[in-house]
Amino acid sequence: MKHLDATHIAEAVRSGVTTPAMVAEHFIAQIKRHERDIQAFVSFDPQAVRQQISRIDGALAGVPVGIKDIFDTVDHPTEFYSPIYQGNRPSRDAHVVALLRQAGAVIMGKTHTTEFAYMHTGPTRNPHDLSCTPGSSSAGSAAGMASGFFPLALGTQTAGSLLKPAAYCGLYAFKPSLGLVSLEGVKPLAPSFDTVGWYGRSIRDLGLLARVLIPGLPVVGPLGRPLNLGFCRTSRWDDVDPSVAQTIEQAIAQLIARGHHLSEVTLPEAFAVVFDDHQLINDCEGARSLTKEFQAHPERLSASTLAMIERAGATTWEQESAAKARLTKLAPLLTQIVQPFDGMLSVSCGMVAPTGLASTGPSDFIKFWGAFGWPQMNIPLRREEGELPVGLQLVGVFRGDAGLLSVAQELADSLEN
Amino acid sequence: MKHLDATHIAEAVRSGVTTPAMVAEHFIAQIKRHERDIQAFVSFDPQAVRQQISRIDGALAGVPVGIKDIFDTVDHPTEFYSPIYQGNRPSRDAHVVALLRQAGAVIMGKTHTTEFAYMHTGPTRNPHDLSCTPGSSSAGSAAGMASGFFPLALGTQTAGSLLKPAAYCGLYAFKPSLGLVSLEGVKPLAPSFDTVGWYGRSIRDLGLLARVLIPGLPVVGPLGRPLNLGFCRTSRWDDVDPSVAQTIEQAIAQLIARGHHLSEVTLPEAFAVVFDDHQLINDCEGARSLTKEFQAHPERLSASTLAMIERAGATTWEQESAAKARLTKLAPLLTQIVQPFDGMLSVSCGMVAPTGLASTGPSDFIKFWGAFGWPQMNIPLRREEGELPVGLQLVGVFRGDAGLLSVAQELADSLEN
Repeated sequence: MKHLDATHIAEAVRSGVTTPAMVAEHFIAQIKRHERDIQAFVSFDPQAVRQQISRIDGALAGVPVGIKDIFDTVDHPTEFYSPIYQGNRPSRDAHVVALLRQAGAVIMGKTHTTEFAYMHTGPTRNPHDLSCTPGSSSAGSAAGMASGFFPLALGTQTAGSLLKPAAYCGLYAFKPSLGLVSLEGVKPLAPSFDTVGWYGRSIRDLGLLARVLIPGLPVVGPLGRPLNLGFCRTSRWDDVDPSVAQTIEQAIAQLIARGHHLSEVTLPEAFAVVFDDHQLINDCEGARSLTKEFQAHPERLSASTLAMIERAGATTWEQESAAKARLTKLAPLLTQIVQPFDGMLSVSCGMVAPTGLASTGPSDFIKFWGAFGWPQMNIPLRREEGELPVGLQLVGVFRGDAGLLSVAQELADSLEN
Repeated sequence: MKHLDATHIAEAVRSGVTTPAMVAEHFIAQIKRHERDIQAFVSFDPQAVRQQISRIDGALAGVPVGIKDIFDTVDHPTEFYSPIYQGNRPSRDAHVVALLRQAGAVIMGKTHTTEFAYMHTGPTRNPHDLSCTPGSSSAGSAAGMASGFFPLALGTQTAGSLLKPAAYCGLYAFKPSLGLVSLEGVKPLAPSFDTVGWYGRSIRDLGLLARVLIPGLPVVGPLGRPLNLGFCRTSRWDDVDPSVAQTIEQAIAQLIARGHHLSEVTLPEAFAVVFDDHQLINDCEGARSLTKEFQAHPERLSASTLAMIERAGATTWEQESAAKARLTKLAPLLTQIVQPFDGMLSVSCGMVAPTGLASTGPSDFIKFWGAFGWPQMNIPLRREEGELPVGLQLVGVFRGDAGLLSVAQELADSLEN
């Protein structure tokens, strides 16, 4: 069952080939074997898992899901990795957690996040190398996925919080367009960028969960023709480690060999501001979102969160307005550039997972596209035995989510075979 | 104390002229006299009010505030006027409620909202005429303000939910730019438009609360020169009742007589789509936000909410995308038109409060500007004794909130004297 995806599991449960209890026990055993090394969970209770099991229908019948501890849950504490919220027990589930339960999913527990999904990291380790970070902020969901603790997991992304851990842990990930998935019961950080996203073992699992969490999302079938893809290095390509660049370029070459059309796209220089504008807005909005915590308990915030609030305090209203205005002005231009393609390829991270758990490396290549609220995916690339994972990033235009999932399926097929 | 604004009350408390307990007892007495007629509160407990009183410092020291029952509160049930959430007790305050308490405010209770801040109305009556609606959805906060139950109150706006009750009840109201005030702990309806707003007895009170809820908002002093204002009827001016139009035009004439420059602005025909595009997006996003309630308890949703979900089901993904794209394209054009002015004037509602409590009339003139996420204010206009209130709408460009508050002060001064 370790290698079965959620689509398989739900089908097996619905058809009676297996039971939700058998599924749950498999994953509980996997967690018991490896959790001590991985530290994916901030809250896990096998009895709570078993007590949930009652349904054998629904799109996610019997499918275990890991939930980043930034989503409210009624049956687990919700602490945002902050001492301020120790023991906090929400009265209702976050919107997406409620939808998961309604679809028959089994909540496996709460997974480690950085403090308020910002930068201060927890104890979670990368299953590919225990001395390395799994990336942040959706660290526990990503490391748990890579450890076979659950076949689906929820994360969130403001800068690189979903795709970076996917890249470092070798996972399929999908971050939909801004605003499509309700943020009710999710701790806000920077509302201009905050988006729910998820990890799966396959592209079709990402689509399965998309149709549960985004009701009305159209189904786009296989394209049945070669893809017309862009490849964009952005102005920060020099920051990409040679070994990562080589893996990306090998993937590009393989796609071309499979008959797809690849066009290298160079963006106008005006786009070089996006990286810094994203950070400036993230700082200012993050500081506003955490005002009540800062006013009440400044001594219980981490140094990195306090530094963000300090940077925000040194930023003027006009600087923030100007950054927002620049992104608003660039968005239609970027749409014109990307729209002619089935999707735009880039790298998810310029490095593999760094050693150590305290810092997780830059998110530039992720936040560049996220700055516009566009859908983004990570597709893990095959590397040599023993090498750490590298992720190919696939981006689509705003609200092009359904088409992007189809493109990703073709891409993954071409890269795997 | 009935006519003191929050700024006065907080000053009196901080200087020891009065105590928070005396302030609270004044408002509790006012509530006991009139609440039976008005039905502003869904949850009010004088003991709970008295137990909160401990502080005599802070920007809102001792200031009572009414909270729309769409915000989470730890000391009152939070039910969204939905039987699905009967008895729901959140574990934490909404972000803005926490900021109010930190500033020394006293939470007076939860005020009536329509179901999920959409259209299904509650029992609240208009203090100016008990046979009339106070408007929706922030009905209880507005009617409570007009009844002297509290000097400040929180509402929210998606289409017309803040400014319509302000217009019908004769209140100053401020809806800031989209995204400036955290929505943590506020039930979402349509995230493209959902915004926290508030009512006050004076423009300076609106600014006082703005500086508590929007940390870092600059302070713009008095302009000290005649205002340069636009006046825009939009394409729906024919829907304005003659008596309302007359009051608005009298106000315009008075502003001109006071030396301000008024320019009538006619928008390009392309803007006629905004009204319907707003409704289409509101329907689709509202249906997504309420998916979990619809899936679990369709029989416990009102007819108007079910009708919204049905309309959303009949709308295609492409239609919603096109509506979003049209608004995105119109926004910079509208900015160019409005930017040269200190502010744009319009009417808040084309009619006075209609008779009956079941429906509250259209929100066209409010949602037109709200569609772009811009700051909006209502300024009540003087009418003849016995006539129902009419509201002048003042609009500024995105993130022009601080300047708009200063413009509103000059406007109010010119209209009052």
